Amino acid sequence: MFYHVKELQYQAKPERPDPVFAKKLQEILGGAHGEITVAMQYLFQGWASRADAKYRDLLLDTGAEELAHIEMLATMIARLLDKAPVQHQEEFVSKDPIVAAVLGGMNPQHVIVSGLGAQPADSVGYPWNGRYVDASGNLLADFRSNLVKESNGRLQAVRLYESTTDRGVKDMLSFLIARDTMHQNQWLAAIAELEEREGRTVPNTFPRQLEKQEVSYAFFNLSRGEESAAGRWAKGPSPDGLGQFQYVSQPKPFGEKPVLKPAPPFVHNTMPPLPPKAMPSMPPHI
Amino acid sequence: MFYHVKELQYQAKPERPDPVFAKKLQEILGGAHGEITVAMQYLFQGWASRADAKYRDLLLDTGAEELAHIEMLATMIARLLDKAPVQHQEEFVSKDPIVAAVLGGMNPQHVIVSGLGAQPADSVGYPWNGRYVDASGNLLADFRSNLVKESNGRLQAVRLYESTTDRGVKDMLSFLIARDTMHQNQWLAAIAELEEREGRTVPNTFPRQLEKQEVSYAFFNLSRGEESAAGRWAKGPSPDGLGQFQYVSQPKPFGEKPVLKPAPPFVHNTMPPLPPKAMPSMPPHI
Amino acid sequence: MFYHVKELQYQAKPERPDPVFAKKLQEILGGAHGEITVAMQYLFQGWASRADAKYRDLLLDTGAEELAHIEMLATMIARLLDKAPVQHQEEFVSKDPIVAAVLGGMNPQHVIVSGLGAQPADSVGYPWNGRYVDASGNLLADFRSNLVKESNGRLQAVRLYESTTDRGVKDMLSFLIARDTMHQNQWLAAIAELEEREGRTVPNTFPRQLEKQEVSYAFFNLSRGEESAAGRWAKGPSPDGLGQFQYVSQPKPFGEKPVLKPAPPFVHNTMPPLPPKAMPSMPPHI
Amino acid sequence: MFYHVKELQYQAKPERPDPVFAKKLQEILGGAHGEITVAMQYLFQGWASRADAKYRDLLLDTGAEELAHIEMLATMIARLLDKAPVQHQEEFVSKDPIVAAVLGGMNPQHVIVSGLGAQPADSVGYPWNGRYVDASGNLLADFRSNLVKESNGRLQAVRLYESTTDRGVKDMLSFLIARDTMHQNQWLAAIAELEEREGRTVPNTFPRQLEKQEVSYAFFNLSRGEESAAGRWAKGPSPDGLGQFQYVSQPKPFGEKPVLKPAPPFVHNTMPPLPPKAMPSMPPHI
Amino acid sequence: MFYHVKELQYQAKPERPDPVFAKKLQEILGGAHGEITVAMQYLFQGWASRADAKYRDLLLDTGAEELAHIEMLATMIARLLDKAPVQHQEEFVSKDPIVAAVLGGMNPQHVIVSGLGAQPADSVGYPWNGRYVDASGNLLADFRSNLVKESNGRLQAVRLYESTTDRGVKDMLSFLIARDTMHQNQWLAAIAELEEREGRTVPNTFPRQLEKQEVSYAFFNLSRGEESAAGRWAKGPSPDGLGQFQYVSQPKPFGEKPVLKPAPPFVHNTMPPLPPKAMPSMPPHI
Amino acid sequence: MFYHVKELQYQAKPERPDPVFAKKLQEILGGAHGEITVAMQYLFQGWASRADAKYRDLLLDTGAEELAHIEMLATMIARLLDKAPVQHQEEFVSKDPIVAAVLGGMNPQHVIVSGLGAQPADSVGYPWNGRYVDASGNLLADFRSNLVKESNGRLQAVRLYESTTDRGVKDMLSFLIARDTMHQNQWLAAIAELEEREGRTVPNTFPRQLEKQEVSYAFFNLSRGEESAAGRWAKGPSPDGLGQFQYVSQPKPFGEKPVLKPAPPFVHNTMPPLPPKAMPSMPPHI
Repeated sequence: MFYHVKELQYQAKPERPDPVFAKKLQEILGGAHGEITVAMQYLFQGWASRADAKYRDLLLDTGAEELAHIEMLATMIARLLDKAPVQHQEEFVSKDPIVAAVLGGMNPQHVIVSGLGAQPADSVGYPWNGRYVDASGNLLADFRSNLVKESNGRLQAVRLYESTTDRGVKDMLSFLIARDTMHQNQWLAAIAELEEREGRTVPNTFPRQLEKQEVSYAFFNLSRGEESAAGRWAKGPSPDGLGQFQYVSQPKPFGEKPVLKPAPPFVHNTMPPLPPKAMPSMPPHI
Repeated sequence: MFYHVKELQYQAKPERPDPVFAKKLQEILGGAHGEITVAMQYLFQGWASRADAKYRDLLLDTGAEELAHIEMLATMIARLLDKAPVQHQEEFVSKDPIVAAVLGGMNPQHVIVSGLGAQPADSVGYPWNGRYVDASGNLLADFRSNLVKESNGRLQAVRLYESTTDRGVKDMLSFLIARDTMHQNQWLAAIAELEEREGRTVPNTFPRQLEKQEVSYAFFNLSRGEESAAGRWAKGPSPDGLGQFQYVSQPKPFGEKPVLKPAPPFVHNTMPPLPPKAMPSMPPHI
Repeated sequence: MFYHVKELQYQAKPERPDPVFAKKLQEILGGAHGEITVAMQYLFQGWASRADAKYRDLLLDTGAEELAHIEMLATMIARLLDKAPVQHQEEFVSKDPIVAAVLGGMNPQHVIVSGLGAQPADSVGYPWNGRYVDASGNLLADFRSNLVKESNGRLQAVRLYESTTDRGVKDMLSFLIARDTMHQNQWLAAIAELEEREGRTVPNTFPRQLEKQEVSYAFFNLSRGEESAAGRWAKGPSPDGLGQFQYVSQPKPFGEKPVLKPAPPFVHNTMPPLPPKAMPSMPPHI
Repeated sequence: MFYHVKELQYQAKPERPDPVFAKKLQEILGGAHGEITVAMQYLFQGWASRADAKYRDLLLDTGAEELAHIEMLATMIARLLDKAPVQHQEEFVSKDPIVAAVLGGMNPQHVIVSGLGAQPADSVGYPWNGRYVDASGNLLADFRSNLVKESNGRLQAVRLYESTTDRGVKDMLSFLIARDTMHQNQWLAAIAELEEREGRTVPNTFPRQLEKQEVSYAFFNLSRGEESAAGRWAKGPSPDGLGQFQYVSQPKPFGEKPVLKPAPPFVHNTMPPLPPKAMPSMPPHI
Repeated sequence: MFYHVKELQYQAKPERPDPVFAKKLQEILGGAHGEITVAMQYLFQGWASRADAKYRDLLLDTGAEELAHIEMLATMIARLLDKAPVQHQEEFVSKDPIVAAVLGGMNPQHVIVSGLGAQPADSVGYPWNGRYVDASGNLLADFRSNLVKESNGRLQAVRLYESTTDRGVKDMLSFLIARDTMHQNQWLAAIAELEEREGRTVPNTFPRQLEKQEVSYAFFNLSRGEESAAGRWAKGPSPDGLGQFQYVSQPKPFGEKPVLKPAPPFVHNTMPPLPPKAMPSMPPHI
Repeated sequence: MFYHVKELQYQAKPERPDPVFAKKLQEILGGAHGEITVAMQYLFQGWASRADAKYRDLLLDTGAEELAHIEMLATMIARLLDKAPVQHQEEFVSKDPIVAAVLGGMNPQHVIVSGLGAQPADSVGYPWNGRYVDASGNLLADFRSNLVKESNGRLQAVRLYESTTDRGVKDMLSFLIARDTMHQNQWLAAIAELEEREGRTVPNTFPRQLEKQEVSYAFFNLSRGEESAAGRWAKGPSPDGLGQFQYVSQPKPFGEKPVLKPAPPFVHNTMPPLPPKAMPSMPPHI
């Protein structure tokens, strides 16, 4: 259950309106690696967690914080949209080319649909969706995904920081970037704990003898040229400590050329032409 | 540029048709962590790579292999759909309850739309889409994402392995599971290389003094109860080697309660009621 | 900013597992009118609100509660998935037809993808998405939308109540249904307040003389037969108090048959055939 | 069954082309609250209606009119796209900044994909989809949704009216705005009729004693601060006439802290660590 | 502008309810090749048509008919859903395995969401969307697309015909199948007319000398094995009458191995490691 | 199974960066008719093919080539994004209107998300999805779809060719346009072969006497005005050689006005009002 306080976790005050930047800022609110994703992902992982209480708590703590980040970004976007211009056209668009550029560079839904408010969508207006959420029940898989979201989240926040000169926006981003530093480190620490307990290959509970072990540590060079032989993945012990990497220069197929059976007549597919007597008889119709 | 050989990388022959399992198997073909995702993700990362040639080659090698996995799964699904039953109803459905269950448990599009072939969709029929692809230009962020896809991919393949008794299906899955073992280890090795070169926090090129460093290693306990204090993320040096974790039991807001300005009249939002003379005048209409 | 307490707002304990019902229950969690929609909708409306503080508070209070409902449903779904069966096939599916039906009627992602946890998706597995959120900046439009979400939410919860005999599930639903009663009434009350202040037609700030007033209260009978003349909308004063309904039995077009200009040659559309000399000359290519 | 006449319901002739405005106008054609939504929504509601003939007729009449509005907007957009410029770049874009702004502000698919025609998509190019349609079988829920669509539709049309100086566009919008006035009033009238017959809480057929009545009229103050106590929803009789609003200043959880059971081993989730002997045995593999 | 008559174009009366078949039938209503697609596609093509009046009329005639087909299918689906069972579980599901199979095989939204009505969605519940519509402004491209939709539409209707024994359903499908016969033939006839006038390669207005003519009729054998040499596409004159097919057994790349430039520092991508002095200097931060 | 060579099939070198054109070029990479669609479509058709080996080979040959086209476009887009500007705002945007226009006209995700790389998305940023793929098992339906994709693909490439003056971009497009010429001709040739063998109406295996033959060749004039009578589809023999077209000037409904049964009480729909005694009794609740 949640309680809300109206103060923001950190202030969200731009120096001046900037509707083009408002559009861009939507990416870290409603994009694949944005704050809605991490809030929902951590909460769904926490609510489904059937493992240690400390992991559930870790997830719910962090999920609750991400809700506060959604709030900060929504507030910032609303303020960047203050005084967004409205187009008065003559011969195509306003004669002021800067105003024309702003009108063209804005997300038109920020006026028409949301009335100068933020949207649960990314920087091209594509709506956030639930397939962005990774919650598998296997915490090592999940924490690795959390690390990815925080890595991309910080990368995107940094790119946005580089794209503006507004000191108010930069100030808020410097807070979010710092929190992404923490969250990357936190998931790295949690991953290290779990890997020590469970091993490094997800899932660790599948009996090794059931997988085709002869290819479990083989690198297949399927792109002409052997630059890839220079990496750590091509030789030496594997990171899970259970095998030795092996570089296969000229990988070959293990399987055969597949030939499918003809379809039964009731699906009305194209049938193979020969031999004609093998053609299945038509279904009886009455 | 690509060349195709018709032999499968590994055989894909079920013992018997099973249209309900065909539906499930779609998950690792066209789901968020399925083979289409990894093929596209590695290729797009490789084609965009502006870094070392060995990383580009690594990506294109592995991307080419994943295309072969799509092919194996598409072949297996087509064979699992051989002889899929077609419903002949009376009083709701077939009187044979097993046939009725199969007809209800199949993906109806496997007959109606694809004519007993596989689809670029997941196990509930939701189409694969390009937002599943992570390709950021930052290889550490990307390789971490690759590790997630392989972790979930192997987890899902293992769950499917547990769900069938068909030895042909299990045989193919044992090959895919082994390759996921390799690919997890390969990305772990590549990540270790990059982290050694670049540091562990993505991106490593953003000047630390520009982020709000006082919260860069602080854990905020936002969910009542302190189970989360028990973890490695709550104290000690941070994994990036640059800070010390700190546990904040009772985090407070740093910001203020936001108050937004009234909207300009041309957006026709609800306006605040007081004081009445502050109400902006209506736009002139002619 | 948000704080979380680990107790549920109301208990979520089924009498027994039921994976088929778990699939159905996803509808009121992640469907168009589900709890994710209302939580996000109320919060985004609140964060964007530029009007009275009491409306902002109303929205944030209710949004915070809806987060608790997501949590209750996620918990209930995880428990309904306890012990979900896994398929062991022979000749199509398990020989036990009830088990076969359960395996066919479950959402396969509840095992393969989420590992017995809930998903941010609806009852057919379609992911929740941000276009479900209405937040326009005009509170009368928004509160009307809130009433719709609560009306459909209660209707769906009632249909689910009718579909189960599990007393634990019914108990939780009886709480959610009661809260939907409150929330419908709450939005009805808030709508009444706003309509009194602003008028009943959204938006009320657009000058009436700028709309084509001769058709502002006319009903067009465009479907043969006049059953629609029997309703309140066909005669008498309009609910906004500004007009009289009028029933037009045989509506005619006001406009002309449109004829579009030929496309310029650089778009390579099909051109009209006549007269031949009117055909635009080809663009110069070098 | 439908018949078409080629005359438009109302004329759709802009004074001059304006490809940037064409992009914006897509919102009320193919957006969540656009004309495709209302046409489909009213028709699907009508076709599914199992209630009074007058409601079915009302829905089919209005659905047929909305098809005419789609046609008007498609025609207007095609005309706004007449003579859309094509980019001739040097050093990034045309040296004429106004042309550059137009080229950047247009929807590129209006040239590349639709060849100067309208699309079933919104103002950011996101395609219309069937989840926008509300058709529940319960007409009070449906008519409330219809009112929302018309409220947002009129609001958006008004915002577009404010964004242009083209008298031809304004003329067409003044017609659509007037029709939205009618349709809001029509649904208000129909809602009043149904509420009188059925009561104000949807659905009215669920026995009240089956809901948790002690919370059916209670407002939970979950966001710190009591501004929300000032509204009509916090005290007095409820709009459905069946209860009294009650304001709960400090709401508490009714439920307990949930603890989920460990997952069975075949899903390969992370397991709780303690006590070690409670760990379920691994599944037998052969 | 459209007028509606309440009679169906053809009757839609099943012999008996069948909720599992109702789910399947959604495919030809709201699937990629369903009736909503063709209705919208023909109308949008017609409204955008800048060519001959007869083509516009052809499109609007056929689009209007397809609206009637949506209506027939929506009616049939509602009737197939009459008396849909509701689940009363004990130990997983109803003890009657046939009822259990029906409950599992239905679309749960047909009860929970649409209240026994049809939906604008396909047979797995995925919503219809506007990207299914092809309307390019080039009528030869468009009519070819229309032929595809009718080909798949008829194929799917035939597969559904094979899947039921209900004479009422078969009767309605026999009408739709016949109309698809007509529409395939109609588009074949219209295509023949246009190809005669314009040539067979779309678009025909692009000067041939501007394309890389040496590969305009060459078949590249990129999949090992030369079975593809046996077809008409491998030799002889091309169907457009302008070239000769040529079979290239061992196609080679024409281009070079691409090497991308390093990214500028402000995007924070991974940089190439060598030579170290070539590394761009960091951006100045203040 | 696939092998990759690093050389491009054809060179992809622009004369200069152009981020606005990079956004547009995404259309033929990740749009509905783009290279991802054709690659996936041909491969899925090939893998599912149960007919002649030559068709399977034809599909896999061409599918492999389309993968090379994705690669060329991804490379070109990355190069067009070299040196993409980053916004430094003052009073809204850069004071240089050309830079402002470029910043507004770019896809912001090309910097923020993909770090100057291509994306599997179209020119408005909408992600590619699997519903674009047509693979039905019936090769005549499929080859017709392939022809549509190549027709639109070439049309869009030509429109892009017209939109740029960059000789490097034009050079690459001239190669792709030529390949689309080949592929259109190839599918035309393959279609002709199949039509000769199977007949022209898809599917050809459904017994003609089972369709409602009286309407199999009738054109219904449902849009007022008879311009459509002027076409080849209105009279003469049908292209399939099995009928005579017939023009129906004033088509009438064949069916009746549908009346649906009342819904059972457990779905809580609105019920018809009369006669009151016909109202179904409420379900018993305990």
